[in-house]
Amino acid sequence: MSPKITTELLKQLRQVMRNPRYVQEPVQAYIVPSGDAHQSEYIAPCDCRRAFISGFDGSAGTAIVTEQHAAMWTDGRYFLQAAHQMDSNWTLMKMGLKDTPTQEDWLVSVLPEGSKVGVDPFIIPADQWKRMSKALRSAGHDLVPVKENLIDTIWTDCPQRPCKPLITLDLNYTGVSWRDKIVALRSKMAERKVMWFVVTALDEVAWLFNLRGSDVEYNPVFFAYAVIGMNTIRLFIDGDRMMDPAVREHLQLDSTLEPEFKIQVMPYGSILSELQAVGAGLSPKEKVWLSDKASYALTEAIPKAYRYLTPYTPICIAKAVKNAAETEGMRRAHIKDAVALCELFNWLEKEVPKGTVTEIVAAEKAEEFRSQQKDFVELSFATISSTGPNGAIIHYKPVPETNRTLSVNEIYLLDSGAQYKDGTTDVTRTMHFGTPSAYEKECFTYVLKGHIAVSAAIFPNGTKGHLLDSFARSALWDCGLDYLHGTGHGVGSFLNVHEGPCGISYKTFADEPLEAGMIVSDEPGYYEDGSFGIRIENVVLVIPAETKYNFKNRGSLTFEPLTLVPIQTKMIDVNLLTEKECNWVNEYHQKCREVVGAELERQGRHEALRWLLRETEPLSRVQ
Amino acid sequence: MSPKITTELLKQLRQVMRNPRYVQEPVQAYIVPSGDAHQSEYIAPCDCRRAFISGFDGSAGTAIVTEQHAAMWTDGRYFLQAAHQMDSNWTLMKMGLKDTPTQEDWLVSVLPEGSKVGVDPFIIPADQWKRMSKALRSAGHDLVPVKENLIDTIWTDCPQRPCKPLITLDLNYTGVSWRDKIVALRSKMAERKVMWFVVTALDEVAWLFNLRGSDVEYNPVFFAYAVIGMNTIRLFIDGDRMMDPAVREHLQLDSTLEPEFKIQVMPYGSILSELQAVGAGLSPKEKVWLSDKASYALTEAIPKAYRYLTPYTPICIAKAVKNAAETEGMRRAHIKDAVALCELFNWLEKEVPKGTVTEIVAAEKAEEFRSQQKDFVELSFATISSTGPNGAIIHYKPVPETNRTLSVNEIYLLDSGAQYKDGTTDVTRTMHFGTPSAYEKECFTYVLKGHIAVSAAIFPNGTKGHLLDSFARSALWDCGLDYLHGTGHGVGSFLNVHEGPCGISYKTFADEPLEAGMIVSDEPGYYEDGSFGIRIENVVLVIPAETKYNFKNRGSLTFEPLTLVPIQTKMIDVNLLTEKECNWVNEYHQKCREVVGAELERQGRHEALRWLLRETEPLSRVQ
Repeated sequence: MSPKITTELLKQLRQVMRNPRYVQEPVQAYIVPSGDAHQSEYIAPCDCRRAFISGFDGSAGTAIVTEQHAAMWTDGRYFLQAAHQMDSNWTLMKMGLKDTPTQEDWLVSVLPEGSKVGVDPFIIPADQWKRMSKALRSAGHDLVPVKENLIDTIWTDCPQRPCKPLITLDLNYTGVSWRDKIVALRSKMAERKVMWFVVTALDEVAWLFNLRGSDVEYNPVFFAYAVIGMNTIRLFIDGDRMMDPAVREHLQLDSTLEPEFKIQVMPYGSILSELQAVGAGLSPKEKVWLSDKASYALTEAIPKAYRYLTPYTPICIAKAVKNAAETEGMRRAHIKDAVALCELFNWLEKEVPKGTVTEIVAAEKAEEFRSQQKDFVELSFATISSTGPNGAIIHYKPVPETNRTLSVNEIYLLDSGAQYKDGTTDVTRTMHFGTPSAYEKECFTYVLKGHIAVSAAIFPNGTKGHLLDSFARSALWDCGLDYLHGTGHGVGSFLNVHEGPCGISYKTFADEPLEAGMIVSDEPGYYEDGSFGIRIENVVLVIPAETKYNFKNRGSLTFEPLTLVPIQTKMIDVNLLTEKECNWVNEYHQKCREVVGAELERQGRHEALRWLLRETEPLSRVQ
Repeated sequence: MSPKITTELLKQLRQVMRNPRYVQEPVQAYIVPSGDAHQSEYIAPCDCRRAFISGFDGSAGTAIVTEQHAAMWTDGRYFLQAAHQMDSNWTLMKMGLKDTPTQEDWLVSVLPEGSKVGVDPFIIPADQWKRMSKALRSAGHDLVPVKENLIDTIWTDCPQRPCKPLITLDLNYTGVSWRDKIVALRSKMAERKVMWFVVTALDEVAWLFNLRGSDVEYNPVFFAYAVIGMNTIRLFIDGDRMMDPAVREHLQLDSTLEPEFKIQVMPYGSILSELQAVGAGLSPKEKVWLSDKASYALTEAIPKAYRYLTPYTPICIAKAVKNAAETEGMRRAHIKDAVALCELFNWLEKEVPKGTVTEIVAAEKAEEFRSQQKDFVELSFATISSTGPNGAIIHYKPVPETNRTLSVNEIYLLDSGAQYKDGTTDVTRTMHFGTPSAYEKECFTYVLKGHIAVSAAIFPNGTKGHLLDSFARSALWDCGLDYLHGTGHGVGSFLNVHEGPCGISYKTFADEPLEAGMIVSDEPGYYEDGSFGIRIENVVLVIPAETKYNFKNRGSLTFEPLTLVPIQTKMIDVNLLTEKECNWVNEYHQKCREVVGAELERQGRHEALRWLLRETEPLSRVQ
């Protein structure tokens, strides 16, 4: 992977930063956030502006370009990748390390007095704008909205915004109709005394209307906004996809409906002017509910006194708690996914010793096996297929320049998942196809202990996920080890593989309490730069736990693994496990055998079944 | 404990809430926060306004009185106590429970449109003012400062503000001179480009000048403010205590000093006008640093553009990291404290069966033994001496009405501590003087497992204390149990027994990372309303940990117990302990024997020494 040469691009950007055609006054710095106008984590090619200007294409990062400097902030998952992808014009700002300045502090330290800092108001979330603007103002600078995106002005071959057909989901998949979701949303709005709700996140629009799309790779969403009033529904969406009879039928666009369920379809680009009209027409006490992560542009459309901002929207919270139909769908999806991975690992075991399997080949093979499963739609994220030192690049994606051949001498880490019409999967397994070293086994076993500590944790109702994060690290900490990423994220139901409002992280302070029905990942790891990476990830469902006592009648929760793929016992140093941990592994493998074994049998995949049976032989501890 | 009858008082308060002599316009609600003008947790009798109006005298709570309602917010430590102390005029708002409204939400739900909510601007911290004011404004109400404290207007027999002599501490105790502390503070100020620093917390003033007082019971502080400029030092303090030659000598008030170390002594009451003068005389870019918990009144004295507010001041952070002199002092104080407790428990063991020892007698006896130790000053908080059901009242203090006799049939919980000139102690032991039930032992052992999990935890440098909180709960959670308080708080060095900026709590999100030299408590518990309370508390010092590996060269930390008092082995169900936990107990007891045993020997306290030796016999697990 050679870095992108950005000297010329940065020169052009610095020119437009001073060009009165685009900026009222010259800006001394320009911020290029990750994300699109919906604050999506995964974005369409036309929105990959930060990657275009810097070369760094990880999922999280913010670029800031000044007259003299170009700096990139990203987190521990991407330190190595960003360092590889960016040329010497760029300074890497490692977030989470003690000495790394915040963007605000850095700007204050490098800007000349009274500077203007520009940003596209559609791309920056309102909460970030507020923080940044305050910090800059208190140092004598100004954050200013630059209407035309300055990257777009120099991005001559920028791809078009996608506008792909929609998929309608019936009750078998969603459990609740879009009308009932609107009713529930309006009741939340009435509770908070708000008259309007603006849906800005793409997965929230998709969930609300029981529609899916494919405008963004890996995420079954489509570009749209919605504005829900107490008696009106406006959907802002482009293209002829609203001409599709299935969609018209699903949304009942041609039916005689009670007016409060009649959907008005409007052009995607008209959201700002429509919202400004809503804002201008508000009577006193009529509030408009937006996410505090909605763009600054849309937030500003509503006069301050009328805004009701929350970190998580009622849709985000409702979406996170899966109903019975969604949970059953997720179970089915995970069984199919496990079948595909049993096939893959069985295949790898035979092929790797031949020296012909590269990371890319292995990733393609994983996709091939998955695509054979019913209701497969696409992958849920770019497959992380990494061997040896590549495994230490936490969000690595193999490309021809880095593509390494799997061997019997190196650890192989596969983090992959798929979108099925009934659910979303995300699983990481770390395998050795030869004989792992004692040190590799030791590290793997600490990671496994952390995985089990979270998965088997019992905790009171109302507990926030971040309170479980240290459980995943304790065994590593005891030996002076750690990993620089969170332990888990919410997972959508045939939706985004990362979703709020819950998660398990030392960083997440604004997470909502875990509730039965929520689905998160459990994925501790250990990474040694230049050597190897280890991660063990299951998707787990929050379920009620039976306990001996029941303090204050609060009830307890625990997790049920939805992912049912064997954890390679060859990598485990059994003597480092407690009896309880050993039993957990054995019970988990027993369940893999029963559930996935039955499906392999049903699909006539006998060789993979034999592999599964072998890989799930019970462990026993030496006493 | 019978509740305080508040009908008449509330009537009077509601009258002054409408009386134009005190309020410009009538206020429909009046907030009575805990705390004084320094946002102290422990307050002088003249500042106990919330207790005066409500009867509830726990250390944390906020009262709000409207025309129709009177409501009290407090946390889990005080639910029972508050319910006992308040009459039916009051509604108890149990903070931390899901259905309890915030003060703001409650006010919005009960107030008539366009209400004024009054509060004493000296008593409310600026950050709370801001939050409350914003929430009220967005609901159409106003938070207004009421200059004269309305409680004081009806409190006819309010005691005088204390003004007791000062104690000077030399380098043997403090390790650093006040001049060097000023130098260090000014260097922090220069780093942040601020010209002035306002010291508002009483323990920060005391620490900065190496002075102690006794204006507030249990906390060796004195009423004062300080304003530190880059070249000036102003100390706002009343009374003739500045006439004390020892104090004058200590502060070098009569010496020829470099002007930047010359202390100007000013009247306590002149802080607001002096600060307003500072505020009025600021040139652009001259910032004034205040805690964001400083009072609204003082914060407002500085124009907004000139304020530099942080959650923790540089003094708070410097004070938390104890130097060698302070650490050694804390060690000495804890050994003396352990001697006193060995005497006490030995005495209790003999006396309790006679049926003559009440909670108050036991608390007095504990104080008597402590007062025999060198450099004893006073207790560090009101002794929690509680037996049987009283133990479930988390911050119980025995009074004649509730005073219960210790017996061989009930669990006894003693949470107590002292101020010695060389350090502050805080220790909880839970004892049974007869035969505990299997259930009592089971619960005790879960609490002990939590205590050990924190005390023995190894964690990377830079870890915040709240990430350790769940370790203390895990064994309880596994059985559906929990406790409704945090796990640990910072402890001062001959200063407040509760201090920031670090702690171990599920609630504390703004805590600073733990650092070697910080001192916190480790005190998980379990409480069964109406039956018993269990808590095991040590004060622990953060120290570097040796680990097998050292990820990213970050280094690791762990804790060393400073408290060295036996944990009653009779209460332990050894079979619930892991081998590691069992070893921890045995090593801890071995250290108690060696260190405290030697001191008991030195002091010729042979009977208590025999008790210690018996209580520290090694445990052994049945295999």
